[in-house]
Amino acid sequence: MKIGYQGIEGAYSEIAAKQFFKSGNCELTGLKDFNEIFSQAHDGILDFAVVPIENSLAGSIHKNIDLLNTFNLKIVGEIYLRISHNLLGIRGSRMEDIKEVYSHWQALSQCEDTIRTILPTVKIQEYFDTAGSAKFVSDTNDVTKAAIASQLSAEKYDLEIIQPNFQDHDNNFTRFVVINRDFLKIKDEAEKYKTSIIFEGKGVPGFLYTVLGSFATRNINLTKIESRPLPARVWSYFFYIDLEGKFNDPDVRAALEEIALVTTNLKVLGSYPSGN
Amino acid sequence: MKIGYQGIEGAYSEIAAKQFFKSGNCELTGLKDFNEIFSQAHDGILDFAVVPIENSLAGSIHKNIDLLNTFNLKIVGEIYLRISHNLLGIRGSRMEDIKEVYSHWQALSQCEDTIRTILPTVKIQEYFDTAGSAKFVSDTNDVTKAAIASQLSAEKYDLEIIQPNFQDHDNNFTRFVVINRDFLKIKDEAEKYKTSIIFEGKGVPGFLYTVLGSFATRNINLTKIESRPLPARVWSYFFYIDLEGKFNDPDVRAALEEIALVTTNLKVLGSYPSGN
Repeated sequence: MKIGYQGIEGAYSEIAAKQFFKSGNCELTGLKDFNEIFSQAHDGILDFAVVPIENSLAGSIHKNIDLLNTFNLKIVGEIYLRISHNLLGIRGSRMEDIKEVYSHWQALSQCEDTIRTILPTVKIQEYFDTAGSAKFVSDTNDVTKAAIASQLSAEKYDLEIIQPNFQDHDNNFTRFVVINRDFLKIKDEAEKYKTSIIFEGKGVPGFLYTVLGSFATRNINLTKIESRPLPARVWSYFFYIDLEGKFNDPDVRAALEEIALVTTNLKVLGSYPSGN
Repeated sequence: MKIGYQGIEGAYSEIAAKQFFKSGNCELTGLKDFNEIFSQAHDGILDFAVVPIENSLAGSIHKNIDLLNTFNLKIVGEIYLRISHNLLGIRGSRMEDIKEVYSHWQALSQCEDTIRTILPTVKIQEYFDTAGSAKFVSDTNDVTKAAIASQLSAEKYDLEIIQPNFQDHDNNFTRFVVINRDFLKIKDEAEKYKTSIIFEGKGVPGFLYTVLGSFATRNINLTKIESRPLPARVWSYFFYIDLEGKFNDPDVRAALEEIALVTTNLKVLGSYPSGN
């Protein structure tokens, strides 16, 4: 089984993929960007892909919500991962040596206050992914450069952890979803399920109120709601919603039938066991 | 009057600020990041600041929605600006010379398809702001480097427009808001007003349904709804809503009084004339 993730070895996405696909019978492939991941999953080059959808501090990874709307792929699982960033330097480098810090902009923003406090004069350099920034620092072999990345990245690229737990807040979790071409065949084995849907408004005033009403009146709990722009129509949006339950639960099914009447392009992305 | 914006001269925010504050009696100041802008506006160092809140292709500028929640500042105006990106190089550089493209990640993502088509092998380099990337390319005086930025940036830093309209979609607009310490004194002069509010859920199931109901039943139209994580409580959110009307309209006032009962930390950010 071929599993795709974004980034290079040591990426948080790789850690999440390993957590979900525990068996050794998987080949993990790091890909450059999310477009490529969705495209390869769509074409069947990948059997599954693991992509981040939301971080508890930074919010949604909007790119992936947009790609879920563009590609006809399904969500078959979710993983919660605690994100613990580390300030990494080459062997022997110390805090006072550092003049430049490299990382993905989201990791940088999750460590913003810490950097401002500990390294107020440092130059911040955005990099495409966290593990990539660790590899870059390792390759330069320069004590003045540091990266913000996972402990796994430190091991992979032989870097020293100058400071662990470098993030501003400890409750830094990322939720990843597992995508593939087909719906998960639900065998009623998990305790709790989640269902993800996407839809556009039909221009009915207050249509979102009607949509939420279909769930609220049936006591279906929503765990996430996100609006995203539709590039083709200025200041129009589509909505992504996560709800508790399976799409073949009678209540959920009735709610979905109801909201199909007031929305356009309603897509059920899938029902899958809730992650821990 | 001192007006702050993010970036350096040539930034889209500077163009928006000039569009709003037409009079020559203003001193425009480019600041490094949004934190600094909000902080200086809060401390009264700036009289006003102009910050982007939403782009029609890329969606919300979440950082600024978060800062609106953190700082006790008000929205007193809004500006819509058409964003037209240009591929800029030093004088004499041609498309075939380019090996590296620099810009802000959001501008890069708005030109993603164009870059992939026209410059498939180019190296993409993230930079803190678009005008800054133009200045950087100008300073290097290197034909292999290009920036994606405004026409104003080309003029300021003496760069050549290698290709205008470089963005993937033509309907690329950014909405900016004008913030300051006090509510706008409404003199009932504008035709249409918008009101922005922020609130958190009280843990009441379906509270968002109740909130939307307070508006829907009074035919108050919502133009935007956005959820953002609350860092202090994992997987908890606050909501940002724009609605049509002024907060002292009887209907809007009644709706706000009603939703105050089911939400916490309800903040009215202000009512202001709708931009064009």
